[in-house]
Amino acid sequence: MKIAVIFPCIDWIKQYNRGSFSSDLVASIIVSFMLIPQALAYAILAGLPAEVGLYASILPLTVYAIFGTSKTLSVGPVAITSLMTAAAIQGVASQQAVDPVNAAMILALLSGFFLSLLGLLRLGFLANFLSQPVVSGFITASSIIIALSQFKYILGISASGDNLPDLIQTLVANIHQTNKITLITGSCALIFLFWARHYFKPLLIRFCLSEHRASLLAKTAPVLIVVITSLAAYQLGLADQGLALVGKIPQGLPALRLPVFNPALWLDLLVPAILISIIGYVSSISVGKTLGAKKRQKINPDQELIGLGASNIMASLAGGLPVTGGFSRSAVNLDAGAVTQAASVFTAIGVTLVTFTMTGLLAFLPKATLAATIIVAVLGLVDFSILKKSWDYSLSDFIAVALTMTITLLIGVELGVMCGVISSIALHLYKTSKPHIAEVGEIGGTEHFRNVKRHQVQTHPSILSLRIDESLYFANASFLEDEILKNIEQRKALKHIVLMCTAINEIDLSALEVLKSLNHQLKKLHISFNLSEVKGPVMDTLKKTDFISQLNGQIFLSQHMAIKTLVEQELLASQNHPDFKDFQI
Amino acid sequence: MKIAVIFPCIDWIKQYNRGSFSSDLVASIIVSFMLIPQALAYAILAGLPAEVGLYASILPLTVYAIFGTSKTLSVGPVAITSLMTAAAIQGVASQQAVDPVNAAMILALLSGFFLSLLGLLRLGFLANFLSQPVVSGFITASSIIIALSQFKYILGISASGDNLPDLIQTLVANIHQTNKITLITGSCALIFLFWARHYFKPLLIRFCLSEHRASLLAKTAPVLIVVITSLAAYQLGLADQGLALVGKIPQGLPALRLPVFNPALWLDLLVPAILISIIGYVSSISVGKTLGAKKRQKINPDQELIGLGASNIMASLAGGLPVTGGFSRSAVNLDAGAVTQAASVFTAIGVTLVTFTMTGLLAFLPKATLAATIIVAVLGLVDFSILKKSWDYSLSDFIAVALTMTITLLIGVELGVMCGVISSIALHLYKTSKPHIAEVGEIGGTEHFRNVKRHQVQTHPSILSLRIDESLYFANASFLEDEILKNIEQRKALKHIVLMCTAINEIDLSALEVLKSLNHQLKKLHISFNLSEVKGPVMDTLKKTDFISQLNGQIFLSQHMAIKTLVEQELLASQNHPDFKDFQI
Repeated sequence: MKIAVIFPCIDWIKQYNRGSFSSDLVASIIVSFMLIPQALAYAILAGLPAEVGLYASILPLTVYAIFGTSKTLSVGPVAITSLMTAAAIQGVASQQAVDPVNAAMILALLSGFFLSLLGLLRLGFLANFLSQPVVSGFITASSIIIALSQFKYILGISASGDNLPDLIQTLVANIHQTNKITLITGSCALIFLFWARHYFKPLLIRFCLSEHRASLLAKTAPVLIVVITSLAAYQLGLADQGLALVGKIPQGLPALRLPVFNPALWLDLLVPAILISIIGYVSSISVGKTLGAKKRQKINPDQELIGLGASNIMASLAGGLPVTGGFSRSAVNLDAGAVTQAASVFTAIGVTLVTFTMTGLLAFLPKATLAATIIVAVLGLVDFSILKKSWDYSLSDFIAVALTMTITLLIGVELGVMCGVISSIALHLYKTSKPHIAEVGEIGGTEHFRNVKRHQVQTHPSILSLRIDESLYFANASFLEDEILKNIEQRKALKHIVLMCTAINEIDLSALEVLKSLNHQLKKLHISFNLSEVKGPVMDTLKKTDFISQLNGQIFLSQHMAIKTLVEQELLASQNHPDFKDFQI
Repeated sequence: MKIAVIFPCIDWIKQYNRGSFSSDLVASIIVSFMLIPQALAYAILAGLPAEVGLYASILPLTVYAIFGTSKTLSVGPVAITSLMTAAAIQGVASQQAVDPVNAAMILALLSGFFLSLLGLLRLGFLANFLSQPVVSGFITASSIIIALSQFKYILGISASGDNLPDLIQTLVANIHQTNKITLITGSCALIFLFWARHYFKPLLIRFCLSEHRASLLAKTAPVLIVVITSLAAYQLGLADQGLALVGKIPQGLPALRLPVFNPALWLDLLVPAILISIIGYVSSISVGKTLGAKKRQKINPDQELIGLGASNIMASLAGGLPVTGGFSRSAVNLDAGAVTQAASVFTAIGVTLVTFTMTGLLAFLPKATLAATIIVAVLGLVDFSILKKSWDYSLSDFIAVALTMTITLLIGVELGVMCGVISSIALHLYKTSKPHIAEVGEIGGTEHFRNVKRHQVQTHPSILSLRIDESLYFANASFLEDEILKNIEQRKALKHIVLMCTAINEIDLSALEVLKSLNHQLKKLHISFNLSEVKGPVMDTLKKTDFISQLNGQIFLSQHMAIKTLVEQELLASQNHPDFKDFQI
């Protein structure tokens, strides 16, 4: 039982049969066709030799098949983490002479350890602090940067930078060096891919393919343009006319090895590695959940951390770059019929075969073609609707999204992610530090209490019922005190305050001190201080202190009972009072 | 009206009379006697020439009297901020040749601008993020460091460091150089001050002084030992035997001036200045509130920021160090009868007179005496009870306090404060990311719903009522989803889920997406998804979306109505059902 949690592969291996095998095999062939150009392209996007992408697409997939819980997630290099890898390598390369491949391996290893550690400590929930709207905004902004960064390959010029202003400036500065043959190749590839995106599937259907098969085959369009432009480059000798090719790729696989140890460099790469891990994990888990929901398969967030962690450690040992679960490939994997993680293992075998047999052909692949596949892929991720959606919903969500996008576009991905996390948390804390406080009254004929400003309710001049809509903790405790004291000043007839604690989920030590001081002040003013509807866990902590014994009032089970008791008490007091007739509740 | 908010002095000047004058004058004389040795001592603690403390005790007090809202707060150099000033100056001095006085002026100026800015933007609530237990722990830890740092003056040796290990190591390494005459002077001063702390007041009462006067006069004991040891040093020529004296202090006051501008240095001092500001403000506001409560005087937190900000700007221009409101002097000021801020103005005049007339005498003041006054003063602030208190109350409060104290003692004050703030926030977020979720049922004979595990309640097998004790936001949204889906798996008869929203104070965009997905999944399982007791502000945001229209269930005003309606609905459905007799609610 427990072994199956650590090795989820045991479950699917046990039930494996011929039907699963053939389904998985078909899916793996289609995914391999998608993966190979993507792997090469994303390695180049990360500023690495193309073959590094292939190395990151073999062992990581196999290891994920052992440790991962999603049956259809396709792990490998993806656009966003490759961009972040590029930014991280550029960041350290400016200070010292750094071998990019070694740096990528360090990033993958650190990511792998970080993710595995989180998984072993069951800290998967930490990923929740990167909110979904912030991730959407970040992906849109990064995709724009990625697409723009690829235009240099379409134009055949040099350009650099990991933010919009730098990219635009260097592109504009060098645009006069545009190479004609590169531009033609790149444009053709771009046009074909955009065309294929919309019209390839209908065309295939017209050729009597079923809708499903046509849809799958259309996804392999990049392979077609890869083959066509490679052949053209080879036959026409386009490299001599300035067309940049992927070039010689070493045949076979390198031996497993650890990145070179250099403490200063590893330390410099630690924060980027953590950011890559978090972004990789958050997007992978959302892909996994989305696909899992379609087939009613559950994924385990903590085990996913271990699966992705192990994949990244393997990516490093294999000489690759950080990997994660990519949306497009995983969706194709599912659509193509993958039923278990074996499909990933077969895909890995497919990629291995390519590295042993087809490197000679890949050498003629124009970089412009790969750039075109990246541009078309990432532009599909650009989605500004999150801006409008969050604007319509709440200002704080909008601020977090807008800030993340702006910083990512104008400064860079790393600061963009950090701003996203920090601004979300800061805005949340800001809101909880100034909580909503409502005066409540009883809705006639019920035992239900609501805001006096929103509902027709019954109140009593000698009793003030307040509901604070937040836990009481250090950031807002004195806010409550100020509010109550302000209210007291305005009401001369006040004899009782009832704090309705339905929304108080915690009272920390700072807040307890404030409540004690409030109790003390109210006692001096001869106003009783009562609580109602205190929750179990909160009551448990209060019982540990002398607050309840010193409370100048009572703790009521419900607000209804509080008001009933206090009103009766007032009536009784007034009957004993000489001016009984004047008394009004 | 509005001018009186910006210049609170208008209020007290208008009502000023002879009675106030004489009260304030008496208080100011006593406070001046306390302030002068303290000002010199804290300047030396901060690693600055002694006179800098005097310069920081004249104009800042006057400016606070104009802008401050506390009638009795005594502004000036205090122990903790002086220690932080020392740490900040040491931090930058290691990198470049820095004039300590200039650095202190920069710190005061930056603090002043930072506090004024917060005040103008009405951001006083930010101080609440430094929780009271963390501040208590920090003050205790800093006081220990301060006391230990002064032992070098008592022994007449050199020692350095701004944390416990460094201080102990350097003290032990140099202890063999102890100067006898210094040790005798310092020990006598220490013994006298500890004695005075406990027995001076009873002695004075025996000399027929009233309890109140004796108590006040006892507070000026440090002046007595200052005078005695200075005279001894002068008469016996103790300086020749190795007793370190304060030495020549320039007569009169320096011209107002700005610190030298050096962008790199100013930037390096920015974070320390912000930390000094926050600690200074938080401790000052707590002193102000405590004293204000005794006399029923209100202080305005935002205006206090401006008051302290202006004081620090003035401290900088006057060539002083960062200042804030100190507890001991302010308490004496109140006890001595100060009724308005004029007492501070008179104190400032007193200090000015000293700088013009008594600098010759102060030159003979032994540093050991000043060190003794600091040690006795700060050891009064050491209070470990917060550790036990927080341990008894809640683990998260304890962790924050213990971490703050440990880091402050072992590493230093700056990291200690930062750890305190960050750990408090992190622990709060951790708690809210895994909220308490209770299944609730109706308490017989009421309309009140409570946790099934804690109360005798009524439930229905086809209805699951859950109360989540936290706002739904990005950090915990998927936690709720997981909990609900887990619950569904266990209950086969389930037809309705009611989410009781009493404790949900906010639903952010991430949480909304989760609720939508949950609604979608429940719909597929033919389980209705209902909400009850949704608060006004939450309902307002939900109404902006299509969530309500797509909800596979209803939104009920109260949990009671929800259960009533659903039970009736079930009954009706079962009556139309062939197996009516089998039906059970």
